[in-house]
Amino acid sequence: MINRRLASVAAAAGMAMLLSFPIFSTAAKGKPAAKDDGRETCYGCHDEVKALKEGSKHAKLACSTCHDKLKEHLDNSETRPITIIDSALCGKCHKDEYATSMMVDYEAPARKEKGIPGGRSPVMDKLLAPYGFTIEHNEPRGHAFMVTDQFVVDRFAGGRFQYKQRWAGVDQVGKTWDILEDKGPDFKMGETGKAGNPTCIQCKTSDHILKWKFLGDKDPKAKWDRTSDIIAVAKDTHNPVGCIHCHDPHGAQPRIVRDELINQIDKGSTMFARNGATDLKVISFRDGFRKIGVMKKSDSRMMCAQCHVEYACGKGFEFDSGKGVGYEDQRTNHMPLKQVRELLDHYRKLNFYDFKHAVTGARLVKLQHPEAETYAGSVHEKAGVTCADCHMPVMKNKQGKSYKSHMMVRPRSHVKESCQGCHPKWNAEQQLYQIDAIKNYISGKMRKSEYWLGELIDTYAAAKRFGVDEATLAKAREKHEEAHVLWEWWTAENSDGFHNPDLARDSLAASITASKEGVALLNKALEERGKK
Amino acid sequence: MINRRLASVAAAAGMAMLLSFPIFSTAAKGKPAAKDDGRETCYGCHDEVKALKEGSKHAKLACSTCHDKLKEHLDNSETRPITIIDSALCGKCHKDEYATSMMVDYEAPARKEKGIPGGRSPVMDKLLAPYGFTIEHNEPRGHAFMVTDQFVVDRFAGGRFQYKQRWAGVDQVGKTWDILEDKGPDFKMGETGKAGNPTCIQCKTSDHILKWKFLGDKDPKAKWDRTSDIIAVAKDTHNPVGCIHCHDPHGAQPRIVRDELINQIDKGSTMFARNGATDLKVISFRDGFRKIGVMKKSDSRMMCAQCHVEYACGKGFEFDSGKGVGYEDQRTNHMPLKQVRELLDHYRKLNFYDFKHAVTGARLVKLQHPEAETYAGSVHEKAGVTCADCHMPVMKNKQGKSYKSHMMVRPRSHVKESCQGCHPKWNAEQQLYQIDAIKNYISGKMRKSEYWLGELIDTYAAAKRFGVDEATLAKAREKHEEAHVLWEWWTAENSDGFHNPDLARDSLAASITASKEGVALLNKALEERGKK
Amino acid sequence: MINRRLASVAAAAGMAMLLSFPIFSTAAKGKPAAKDDGRETCYGCHDEVKALKEGSKHAKLACSTCHDKLKEHLDNSETRPITIIDSALCGKCHKDEYATSMMVDYEAPARKEKGIPGGRSPVMDKLLAPYGFTIEHNEPRGHAFMVTDQFVVDRFAGGRFQYKQRWAGVDQVGKTWDILEDKGPDFKMGETGKAGNPTCIQCKTSDHILKWKFLGDKDPKAKWDRTSDIIAVAKDTHNPVGCIHCHDPHGAQPRIVRDELINQIDKGSTMFARNGATDLKVISFRDGFRKIGVMKKSDSRMMCAQCHVEYACGKGFEFDSGKGVGYEDQRTNHMPLKQVRELLDHYRKLNFYDFKHAVTGARLVKLQHPEAETYAGSVHEKAGVTCADCHMPVMKNKQGKSYKSHMMVRPRSHVKESCQGCHPKWNAEQQLYQIDAIKNYISGKMRKSEYWLGELIDTYAAAKRFGVDEATLAKAREKHEEAHVLWEWWTAENSDGFHNPDLARDSLAASITASKEGVALLNKALEERGKK
Repeated sequence: MINRRLASVAAAAGMAMLLSFPIFSTAAKGKPAAKDDGRETCYGCHDEVKALKEGSKHAKLACSTCHDKLKEHLDNSETRPITIIDSALCGKCHKDEYATSMMVDYEAPARKEKGIPGGRSPVMDKLLAPYGFTIEHNEPRGHAFMVTDQFVVDRFAGGRFQYKQRWAGVDQVGKTWDILEDKGPDFKMGETGKAGNPTCIQCKTSDHILKWKFLGDKDPKAKWDRTSDIIAVAKDTHNPVGCIHCHDPHGAQPRIVRDELINQIDKGSTMFARNGATDLKVISFRDGFRKIGVMKKSDSRMMCAQCHVEYACGKGFEFDSGKGVGYEDQRTNHMPLKQVRELLDHYRKLNFYDFKHAVTGARLVKLQHPEAETYAGSVHEKAGVTCADCHMPVMKNKQGKSYKSHMMVRPRSHVKESCQGCHPKWNAEQQLYQIDAIKNYISGKMRKSEYWLGELIDTYAAAKRFGVDEATLAKAREKHEEAHVLWEWWTAENSDGFHNPDLARDSLAASITASKEGVALLNKALEERGKK
Repeated sequence: MINRRLASVAAAAGMAMLLSFPIFSTAAKGKPAAKDDGRETCYGCHDEVKALKEGSKHAKLACSTCHDKLKEHLDNSETRPITIIDSALCGKCHKDEYATSMMVDYEAPARKEKGIPGGRSPVMDKLLAPYGFTIEHNEPRGHAFMVTDQFVVDRFAGGRFQYKQRWAGVDQVGKTWDILEDKGPDFKMGETGKAGNPTCIQCKTSDHILKWKFLGDKDPKAKWDRTSDIIAVAKDTHNPVGCIHCHDPHGAQPRIVRDELINQIDKGSTMFARNGATDLKVISFRDGFRKIGVMKKSDSRMMCAQCHVEYACGKGFEFDSGKGVGYEDQRTNHMPLKQVRELLDHYRKLNFYDFKHAVTGARLVKLQHPEAETYAGSVHEKAGVTCADCHMPVMKNKQGKSYKSHMMVRPRSHVKESCQGCHPKWNAEQQLYQIDAIKNYISGKMRKSEYWLGELIDTYAAAKRFGVDEATLAKAREKHEEAHVLWEWWTAENSDGFHNPDLARDSLAASITASKEGVALLNKALEERGKK
Repeated sequence: MINRRLASVAAAAGMAMLLSFPIFSTAAKGKPAAKDDGRETCYGCHDEVKALKEGSKHAKLACSTCHDKLKEHLDNSETRPITIIDSALCGKCHKDEYATSMMVDYEAPARKEKGIPGGRSPVMDKLLAPYGFTIEHNEPRGHAFMVTDQFVVDRFAGGRFQYKQRWAGVDQVGKTWDILEDKGPDFKMGETGKAGNPTCIQCKTSDHILKWKFLGDKDPKAKWDRTSDIIAVAKDTHNPVGCIHCHDPHGAQPRIVRDELINQIDKGSTMFARNGATDLKVISFRDGFRKIGVMKKSDSRMMCAQCHVEYACGKGFEFDSGKGVGYEDQRTNHMPLKQVRELLDHYRKLNFYDFKHAVTGARLVKLQHPEAETYAGSVHEKAGVTCADCHMPVMKNKQGKSYKSHMMVRPRSHVKESCQGCHPKWNAEQQLYQIDAIKNYISGKMRKSEYWLGELIDTYAAAKRFGVDEATLAKAREKHEEAHVLWEWWTAENSDGFHNPDLARDSLAASITASKEGVALLNKALEERGKK
C-alpha cells in the first residue's frame, strides 16, 4: 500500500521551497545521476513510477528533483514526501516552453464583457437570463490568467476576491495569492454571484491533482471534492493549469489527468479515435482513487479536451421532475463528448439541465467552450491536424533553438508558423482574409440566431400575458430549448466557427428554424385567440 | 438581315479559345492591320459596325481580333461566328486597366453580414422580415467578385453553389466555374433562399449581352429572358461585369448596355442631363432586339448607373389589388430613376411593391444601391465631378505610365489621387477626417431611423394584439411604408451618405418623423382603447 | 464707482483690433514697462486690479496691453475702454500653450453619434426619449470645437447654424462666425431641436464674462441673462473657452469664473477641499455683479469643474407639482456638486427634474459630464493627482523648452508624459492594457444597466396596457428614476469609469438592481392580474 500513498501526497509547494532543493540543480542540468541517487529504494514500493520513468526522457532525474522530505518518508512511510507541482520547476530545463506559457498576450483585452454590441454574444443578458454568466462573462485571455480571471469575475465569489494592486493587477501573472486578496466573507458588492464550484476549478489549475478523488467524489483521502467549500478550494489554488496536466512528470509521456475525460474515453467515447481507436492507456493509482491517461504519441486534441469541451460543472435540475441536482450527484461533473446536434437529447436522457429561462421558463443547458467537439470531424481534423499544430507552433528562440510555443494564442497572431507549413500558397494577408471570411459569415449567423431567439422570447411573453393556452406555450418552450443549444454552442466556442464552419452553419441555421417555428406557433395562437 | 444576325451571335468564349487566335497577337500589338484583313467583307453587311469602328481608336484591329469562326460564317451566314467577350482579351493591350479590374481589395472583408451591431444595417433582420435579404446580406466587395459573391450568397440558390476550394475560394478571382461548384438540385441547406433571378444577373456580368432581348422579354432569338431558369443562367455566367459593359469593343466609344437604363433615358429621364440634355445616342440592333447607348464624352455617371441605381428585379405585388407580379411582367425589370422623396409615389403609381412586412403587413419596397440617384444633385455632381473622378483616379504604374484605375474601391483608399486634385488645401488626414464626419453624422441618423422603425413595428404588434381598429392600423402601415423607403435608401446606398449628405439628412429625418407619427397614432389608439 | 465700471466693460474685440495695438508689441516682448506707462492712473480707481497685478507675473505689462480706448475712458469715465479677451493675445507670449489649445486631435472623430451600437450610449434613443439629446448627441471633441460643435448640433438651434464651408468646416478652428453661418430664422430642417440656452453657453466660451451677471440673473448692466434669446447670445459668441477662464489676466493667478461653481464653493461645498479647506478666495466686482475665485496654488480640479460637472442648465419641472421651471428661476443654472448616489435626493429636495420619460412618465434628470464629482474621492484624487497632471502633462517643444500642454486630450494619447512620472514600472503597452481593462469592465456594466433599463421600460409599457394598477406603476416609475440617474451619470461622464472605477461599479450595479426590482414588481402585478 505504501506505493499508492506516496503518489497521493499533497503538495504544499511554493517557490521558496523550490530554491532550497539540494539535488535539483545538478539533475536539471542533465548530468547523469549517480546510480545510487536513491531511485532504486523508491522503485521498491512504487513500481508504476518505475514503469513510467525508466527508459523515458526523464529517466536520469533523481526522485528528489520533484519530491522533498524523502528521507522522512523513508524513515516513516506514514510521513508523506512533498511533491512539487509548480511549473517553474519544469521551466528550469524547459525554459522556452515555460516562459511562453506565462506570457501575456497584450492583444487579448482584459475584462471585456461578451454581452455588448460588437462583443462575442451581444444579447446574452436577454438570452441567458437569469443565469450567473449574465453577471459578468468576458472574452477569454491566455492560460496564465486562468485562475485569477476565474476568481475575480463578479459571478464567482460575490466579489470578495480582488486584485491586491487593483487594476494594475490585471496583467500580473504568477502565484494566485501574490496577485489577489480575499476581502473576506462579509464583503458585499452588488450584482455579483456565488457560482464558483470545486469542479470548475479542476480545469483551471493542476494544483489539486493529488487531493481530488477520481470524478470528485467525497472520500476521506480526498482533501477536496465536488461539495467542498469553494472559498477554501480557491485559497488552496496557487497556479494556473501547469505542465503536469499534459505531461507525466515521471516519464515526460503525453498524458491527460482530467477525471471525467478519462472516464468518458474509458467508457467508450470515440470522439478522439483515429482508425477506430483512441490511443490512451489508463493507469489507476490507489485502487482508482486517481487515474491518468497516457498516450504513446502526443495528441493535443485530448490534452486540450481536458478543459476545452462542453461540460456540466454546476448544480442543475432534472428535466422530468424539475427536482434539483446537487453537487453530491456525479452529473455535476459530466462531459457529454457529444456533437451539437445530439446534445439536447443527451442531456434529456441524462435528465439534467442548468437553469430555466427568466421569461419563457424553458429548461436550458448552459454551454461551456466545446472546442474539442466542434473541431472533431472538421476538415482540418480529418486531415490529421491537432490543436497544437495551429495554437502551439514551433518557434525559434533568440539562440535559434526551436521550441513549441506554450503561449496558446489565436493562430492569426502567428499565421506564418501556424498555417503556412501546410498552406504555403497564400501569404499572410490572404490567409487572414480567408480566416476572417469564415468568422464574418458565422458571426453573421450567430447574430441572426440571437435575433430569432429574442423574437421567440418576446413573443412568448406576449402570448403568456394574453392567455395563450399552456399546450402551445409548452411547445414554444421546447422550441426554445432546442434553438438555445444550437445557438449557444457557437458563442461559447472560441473560434467564431473557424474550427468547423460547416457544422456551425448547419447548427445555427437549425437554431433559427427552431426559433422561427416557435414564433410562428405563438403568433398563430395569438391571432386565433382574437377570433374565438 | 445578315448584318443583324452577326451581331447577335452568342459567345461560347473561354480562355482556351483565346489562345488559339491566329491573327490576334499581331493586331493586339497595334501594328497596322493590312487593308485586306477582311473587314471590308464584314462591313459589306454590318454597316453599324463600320460606323463605330472606322476612325475610332480600335479602327486598326481586324475583326478576327474579337471574332472567331469568321470563315465558316462567310461560307454560310447561318453559321454564327464567335464573339469573345472575355475582358482578358481587352487586357492584352489595356494591361493596367484589366489588372486593376481583377485586383482584390483586402481591406474589404468577405461575407461580412450587414445585419449585425456595427454593421451597415444592424437591425435589418427586424426591419426587412421576411424578405430574402434577411437570409444573408453582406457588405459589398470589389467588382471582380460580383458574380461569385452573388452566386454563393445563401439567399440566391438554396446554397447549391459553393466554393470548390471551400473558404480558400473566397478571395479567388477568375472564371466563375473554376472557383465555384454546383452541389446539385438535391442539395439541402437550412435557412437559405432561392431569390436569384435572371434580371439581377444582368448587372453582375456582361456575358449575356448577346443572349438577352432588350428588357429581357421572351423571344425565340434570346437564349435567356426574365423567366429563364436562374440555375441555367448562372451556369452560363463565367465572368463578372467586363470592359464591354462601358466600352464599345468595335470603336472604344464610351457606352452603356443595360437595357432598362437605356430605356428610361430614351423615354426622357433627365437624371443625367447636363445643360438640359443627356449625351447618349441609342443604337438599335436587329429591329430593337438589342440596343446600346453611345456617348461622345465618357460620363461614368451613366456607365455606373447601369447597376448602381435602385431597380426592381424580382417578383412583387400590386399595391391596389395585392395581386402577384411575375417575371413575365416588365415591372420586374424596372429602374425608376427617381429621387428618394419621389420614390414611394412612383412605385404606387407603377402599382408595384416587393413584399409585405412580417409584423405590420406594410407593403414595402426593397431598395438596391441607388448611388446614381443619390449622387444626382449633390454638391460634387453639380461641380461636374463624375463617379470615375473619385473611384477610378489616374494612377501611375511601375513604368511611370498613367492609367485609370479600374479597381473601383473606396476613394478613402487613395485620397491623394481622388480628392487632392480638386482639394489641394487639406492633407489626407484632414480629408479622411472630413469624410468620416459625414459618415458618422449620417450613420447616426440611420441608426435613429432604424430605432424608430423598430418602435413603429413593436407598437403596431401591440396595437394589433390589443384589438386597435383596422383604420388606425392601416394609417400606421402607410406611415411604415413611407418611413421604410426614406430609410432603406441610405442603408442600401454604399457611401453612408457621403454622396449627398444633405439629401441623406433630409430623407432620414423624414423617415424618423413618419415613424414617430405612426407610433403616436398607435399609442393614442392604445390609450383610448382603455378609456372606452 | 469708476473702478467697478472699468472691469465690466464689454469686449468688442477681434483680431483686427489686436493688430492695431500700439503698446502691445513692446510689452508682450517682456521688456520692462516704463513706470510712467499709465498704470498708476488706472490704479487710482481700480484698487482690486492693483492688488492682483502688482508683484505678479504680469506686473510689468501695461494696462494698454489688454485694454484699448483708455484715453477716451480717462477723458470721460462713462466711455468704457475695450477689454481684449481673445486668447490669441495671451498666445503672443504663451505660444505653446495657446497653440496646443487650438490643436485638432484627429483621433477624436467629429459628429460621431453616441446612440449607436458600439457608441458611448447605444440605446440612448430609448432611454432618453423624448429629451433633446436624442436628436443628436456626439462623442466629445477638443476644446477648440466647444462653441462650433454646440452651435451646429441638430438639437441646438433648429439647424440654422451650419458650416460655411459645409463639411470642410468640421475641423476648422478659430472665430465662430468665420466658420459658421446663420441660415436665418426661417430655415427649416426636420428632426431638430431648439434646446440651446444662454446658461449652457457659459461653459463653452469666455466671451460673456463681462456681460453676464453673477448666476445669470436679469440686470440692466448685463447684456445677457438666463432668459436672453439664445440666437442673439450665440451670434455674440466668437471664441471657445479661453485663457481667462482659468487664469486671471491682471496677475496670472489661477482662477475660476464660472458663477455657480463659485457660488457653491462659497456656500460650503467641500468637494474640492484638501485638509478640510478649499483654497479659493472669492473677489467680488461691482457689488457682486461679477465674482471670480482666485487660488494661491493652481488646482485644475476646480478650473475644470467650471464645466466638467453635472449641472442643470435648461428648463425643467418640479417634482411635487409637475409645474414648469423657467429660465427666470435660478434652478436653471445650478450645480449640485454631489456624488452620484446622493444626486437624486438632491434634485428631489431642490424640486427639479428635466423631463418625463416618453414611455414610463418617470421624472428624469438629464445628466451632464460629471467628471469633477466622479473623480472626487478616487484613488488618484486621494493621491493628490489633479486633472492637469494627466490631461495637460508637461511636454517639450521643438526648441526643447517645457510647456504644459493645453490640448487636453485623452491621456492614453501621451501615456509616457501622463502616467509614467508616477508609474515608471510599467511600459506604455502595459499601461494602456490596464486602462482598457477598467474601461472594458465599466463599459460592460453600462451595457448591462442599459439592458435592464430597457427591460423596465418595456415591461412598464406592457403593464400599463394590461391595466396594472397605478400604485404599482408609480412604484415602477420611482425605480426608473433611481436606476436612470445611477446609470446615466456614467455615460455622460467622459472616462468610461476610469476616473473612479469603484464608484462606477457600485453605482451601475445599484442601477441594475433598481431596474430589476422595477421589472419584478411589474411582472408580479402582470401575473397576478391574470389570476384575479
